[in-house]
Amino acid sequence: MNEFELIHRLIPTLPTNPSVRVGAGDDCAVLDLGLPDAWLLFKTDAVVEGIHFPADTPPEKIGRKALGRCLSDIAAMAGTPNSALITLGLPRDFEASRVEAIYRGSNELARRFGVAVAGGETTTNPERVWISVAMLGTVAKNKCVLRSGANPGDAIFVTGELGGSRAGKHLDFEPRLLEARWLADHFAIHAMMDISDGLAGDLRHLLHASQAGAELLADAIPISPAARRRAQDGRSPKTPLAAALTDGEDFELLFTVASRDAVPLVDAWKQQFPEPALHCIGKVLAEPSVNLRTRDGVRSLTEQGYVHFL
Amino acid sequence: MNEFELIHRLIPTLPTNPSVRVGAGDDCAVLDLGLPDAWLLFKTDAVVEGIHFPADTPPEKIGRKALGRCLSDIAAMAGTPNSALITLGLPRDFEASRVEAIYRGSNELARRFGVAVAGGETTTNPERVWISVAMLGTVAKNKCVLRSGANPGDAIFVTGELGGSRAGKHLDFEPRLLEARWLADHFAIHAMMDISDGLAGDLRHLLHASQAGAELLADAIPISPAARRRAQDGRSPKTPLAAALTDGEDFELLFTVASRDAVPLVDAWKQQFPEPALHCIGKVLAEPSVNLRTRDGVRSLTEQGYVHFL
Repeated sequence: MNEFELIHRLIPTLPTNPSVRVGAGDDCAVLDLGLPDAWLLFKTDAVVEGIHFPADTPPEKIGRKALGRCLSDIAAMAGTPNSALITLGLPRDFEASRVEAIYRGSNELARRFGVAVAGGETTTNPERVWISVAMLGTVAKNKCVLRSGANPGDAIFVTGELGGSRAGKHLDFEPRLLEARWLADHFAIHAMMDISDGLAGDLRHLLHASQAGAELLADAIPISPAARRRAQDGRSPKTPLAAALTDGEDFELLFTVASRDAVPLVDAWKQQFPEPALHCIGKVLAEPSVNLRTRDGVRSLTEQGYVHFL
Repeated sequence: MNEFELIHRLIPTLPTNPSVRVGAGDDCAVLDLGLPDAWLLFKTDAVVEGIHFPADTPPEKIGRKALGRCLSDIAAMAGTPNSALITLGLPRDFEASRVEAIYRGSNELARRFGVAVAGGETTTNPERVWISVAMLGTVAKNKCVLRSGANPGDAIFVTGELGGSRAGKHLDFEPRLLEARWLADHFAIHAMMDISDGLAGDLRHLLHASQAGAELLADAIPISPAARRRAQDGRSPKTPLAAALTDGEDFELLFTVASRDAVPLVDAWKQQFPEPALHCIGKVLAEPSVNLRTRDGVRSLTEQGYVHFL
């Protein structure tokens, strides 16, 4: 049983209450606690030494990554982050100066986005460091974007370039908060999520939530220079396209808009954001299959995103 | 450097913003996100196998404890819990049925208090299980009780009985949510916290936040039958009183009220709550020292609460 199958079994058992607008299964939980025009976004995300970062990672970058992953999930709902709590699991001999460096990394990123670090705790985990970040944000009720709103005929977009994140981007990616809010403010974004487990897997999650399928254009998928380099020099056994589809930890936005909005969106984006580039990579279909159109024809997209096995 | 010294160094470096009413250092962070009459309470707490529970603990009890600790912190502010996110760190071979059992334990307790489990995630931690719970609650602005409001002359109260929690209570304690809200609704509670690290240590935290001292009456400190049994049969090297002062994980309420409220409070409590019992254990002093009055006289309270060493 992988993580997604287990989650599928657990979700129906979870207690709920009237404040829950969206529970488990989207990028953030969405809660109505009585704010006049806004919902709360609530998210946790953890990184573990040896799983999400190598043991020799500079501690500032660990702290930055842990906080950035939650920021990316707030962005995926077109939200504004407000505050975070940081929980550290640490071996007993972990130096206090390294704890301070972890906090420097998360504090710096938090400060740039106006996020308060309102507390947290440290606890013992003898074998390895882990960091769990809990984050609160808000989103205007009429601007919240879920995974479930994609419609047949929608154009599918991604920001930035995909694949090869392990070469460095997984530690110093830019959460697309400003871009996501601008998108929701200026266009009717039907569905959105961030790409954390690879385009192939995450697109499936979005399409599953939207009860739809898609056709991707292989030539339109933006492949990062890092993915090309890693394929060329043999550090990755994947083709650059496979890396872009499956590597994960891109932390770019994946979203859909009505096809009539696609060209105006691309034009307005270029005016607004010199970078990252915006790429239309395919379209949403009514049938649930996911296909890839290459120069050789159309084939089923068999690539899988990163799957967390228990 | 222990956890408290490190936290003391980290707190001034944490980014803040105008929504933060109380940041790191109280039982929960207190946030003003624009609710007309209420503040948000935001808390995370983690438990780790081998540190907070033995490896052979029934998984339902692990889930219950992890969620209950956060509920106890919401109670400490006189708040009402709303929703939780549960993050699990799991060895790769951990059975899905045990994950489901962990969730059963937390779900059952959550349901009893109207708390939604609105999501979370599982991640890999190869050597041992950990659970990090993030919780959101609310509290009426005029009812929120901090650690910092104790005044000289206040009577000091604790609920229930202290010490010997390891005999079982640490897994199946009752978060004092109803009791804490009743207290804040009916009396001017000056300062409150939950006892998680032992009365001796936690009282010092409350007094430090309130810039005050205290005199405790040794004979008035309620010692649990478990603490007495563990001292008698040699499972604990501590005297029963030392256990009540230092064992930790009691998850009872510690609070102060003006001395004139002490007798009316005790009377009203007995009417309202057949259990737990309420105990007046001493008084707040202006001088910062903490003393213990025994039958042999007054001595400085040298006992320490549980200190988390890094």
